[in-house]
Amino acid sequence: MVAVVISIGDELVCGLTINTNAAWLSQQLAAVGIHVQAHLTVGDDMPTIIQTIRAAIGSCDLILISGGLGPTEDDLTREALARTLDEELVEDSQARAGLEAFFQRLNRPMVASNLVQARRPVSARCVENTCGTAPGLVARFDSTDIFVMPGVPREMKEMFDREFLPLLKKRSGGNVTRVLKLNTFGAGESWIGQRLGDLMKRTNQPAIGTTVQEGIVAVRIYATGPLDTVDSMLAEARRAVLERLGNLIFSEHDITLEQVVAELLKRRRHTLAVAESCTGGLLTQMLTSIAGSSVYFLRGWITYSNAAKIEDLCVAADLIARHGAVSGQVAQAMADNARRKAGADWGIGITGIAGPDGGTADKPVGLVYIAMAGTDGITVRRCQFAGDRYGVRVRAAQMALTLLRFKLLGLDAGVVLP
Amino acid sequence: MVAVVISIGDELVCGLTINTNAAWLSQQLAAVGIHVQAHLTVGDDMPTIIQTIRAAIGSCDLILISGGLGPTEDDLTREALARTLDEELVEDSQARAGLEAFFQRLNRPMVASNLVQARRPVSARCVENTCGTAPGLVARFDSTDIFVMPGVPREMKEMFDREFLPLLKKRSGGNVTRVLKLNTFGAGESWIGQRLGDLMKRTNQPAIGTTVQEGIVAVRIYATGPLDTVDSMLAEARRAVLERLGNLIFSEHDITLEQVVAELLKRRRHTLAVAESCTGGLLTQMLTSIAGSSVYFLRGWITYSNAAKIEDLCVAADLIARHGAVSGQVAQAMADNARRKAGADWGIGITGIAGPDGGTADKPVGLVYIAMAGTDGITVRRCQFAGDRYGVRVRAAQMALTLLRFKLLGLDAGVVLP
Repeated sequence: MVAVVISIGDELVCGLTINTNAAWLSQQLAAVGIHVQAHLTVGDDMPTIIQTIRAAIGSCDLILISGGLGPTEDDLTREALARTLDEELVEDSQARAGLEAFFQRLNRPMVASNLVQARRPVSARCVENTCGTAPGLVARFDSTDIFVMPGVPREMKEMFDREFLPLLKKRSGGNVTRVLKLNTFGAGESWIGQRLGDLMKRTNQPAIGTTVQEGIVAVRIYATGPLDTVDSMLAEARRAVLERLGNLIFSEHDITLEQVVAELLKRRRHTLAVAESCTGGLLTQMLTSIAGSSVYFLRGWITYSNAAKIEDLCVAADLIARHGAVSGQVAQAMADNARRKAGADWGIGITGIAGPDGGTADKPVGLVYIAMAGTDGITVRRCQFAGDRYGVRVRAAQMALTLLRFKLLGLDAGVVLP
Repeated sequence: MVAVVISIGDELVCGLTINTNAAWLSQQLAAVGIHVQAHLTVGDDMPTIIQTIRAAIGSCDLILISGGLGPTEDDLTREALARTLDEELVEDSQARAGLEAFFQRLNRPMVASNLVQARRPVSARCVENTCGTAPGLVARFDSTDIFVMPGVPREMKEMFDREFLPLLKKRSGGNVTRVLKLNTFGAGESWIGQRLGDLMKRTNQPAIGTTVQEGIVAVRIYATGPLDTVDSMLAEARRAVLERLGNLIFSEHDITLEQVVAELLKRRRHTLAVAESCTGGLLTQMLTSIAGSSVYFLRGWITYSNAAKIEDLCVAADLIARHGAVSGQVAQAMADNARRKAGADWGIGITGIAGPDGGTADKPVGLVYIAMAGTDGITVRRCQFAGDRYGVRVRAAQMALTLLRFKLLGLDAGVVLP
């Protein structure tokens, strides 16, 4: 089964937006054994869109289209599909009801132009959009299936996973590619590469590669083969990687560090309070981004100023005077007092210099103290992070989650580099 | 002058590498007035590459190709170009000398397979690669110019800037494209579309389009014309858009809402404290993501539990009992007390239901109260946001920033939809 991915939007061909949808769709298709022949990206131009869909119809079994389903005049995909199929556009009563319900939920009047989003080519079927107003479309021309999705990545992904992936799983056959991503935090990419050694040879099958983003080194295993053997190939390679990297791996696929820590806290029925200075709410935001976080997350303080540390968190003024606001002692007091005030099992205190200004020879930009208070006492770690303000803050938050993860697992965090 | 950008590589159509080259090339071409009609991305497959180049030749004046120039077996672009032109590949003596010099500089032996990189179709010209081993190619078929570059972004960019951009500048006939992005928050895309009305007609010059992400609707103006008039065309279109959207526009280009608000706070030497419940630190994280934020940001509380609201923020227990933790009254108390405790000019209080659970008929998921306390008193706004947990939280934080922005500008926020 051969597919073509078509992305539609002026912002794409003008280079203002990098097309990430096409790559994402290709990965999903590879996972179910569908070969992608080409990505075709065109602007909001009717003749070009029609010509592109027509040319693709002749060369593949499946066309995935994203973009151009909005309510404004530059959204032409519905009309272009209708003209390609040589059909009229009609209003879909269910899609219209869905649109009306969407605006009712928001308690906003529906603008008349939104109604065009309920239209579909006569022979096509509308597909519900649970995150936005633009329904998707399913059509067929000769022997080619055409799936149309919104261009907003989150809406497209949700619709693809819910509606289209189950359809495609049923139909594909032959060699499939399975990709497994193992996520690590606490060691550099070159260290991970050295540790994996011969496993990373380019000629290996499965192939293993690494990528790094904000301190998280992802190890990807790509196994290609017949459906009945590919999973065991992948499992074997996974075991080999686990043997070499052990507890540095915190999750598989796209499971985040905060999800892992949230799961551990929930399972142990432990609660948490957080006091942040340089990370400015980032760690708390990550911890509360997960549904049901009120079970484990009790309170947070963002004590940016010294006055806030003293008044809100009862950090002793002379402790700050003696050691400075960025010090292991202050981090420990923040963690301990946050834990006590909230009556939580765990308290985290973070203080450091995110930059770009504020660094000194003694305490350079990127220096962050992270303290953990628990029933077994308080520990603190001095970290020196690289990167800009954003990078330092993200790495500090990830490190705090990692240290808490090791605590919750009852493991020594010595393997995690400072 | 119309161009097509072709990107070649299995890693691209498999979705393992996101294609950033095509967007970069489009931006460069737009800046010299060349319109890009399509991005075509294909794998390392000879018939597909040939067919793609042939189809493009018929539809444009310029083809930019990147990728597939390496020394290994999966690099097919040279051969595909030769077959498209119906020519033999010959060795280019200057390119061979360049390759030999490259390896000599690195003091490494040249592998025999590298020699294929010195080959070119008879009528083509080799272009030096100063960062790597793969020379580029320039060819012509009928009236279409074909420029071929390496796929490694750094090598491609260097070659394009050095060799191809000067050629294109001479030829583009003076017409250039300028793009301006105007960012709005507080109205839906369809509402914005209706307000812009005839400005968005597809036949207009400059062309105006909208895209939306997490509640932020971006209005893009694309002006194409001679160098000496394009900027005034853009300015005029900008004025027309501003006239219709006014204060809903918070910035141009990629300036974020938090940057705008930070700038306003700094300019007025105002300070801020934030009390968050459902947004869980997200707003504070955004406000502190900006370098130097300690000048205006004083303190933050993430009062997830009722106990935290009562103990840390002195919200009256009976206020919560009477109206519920998610209520305008509690949001106002949070804002007011945060402001007083921190001694700040402004206090923000946010309480709501981010979901997916916790909603009721009376207080559904997405309901968020946002209160602003200032010297002129306290205001509160009831908002109903769409989307999942992430979407609700982001929109609530953006709305809080927007309401503060209107306050700081001394403007009425009535135009912002709830």
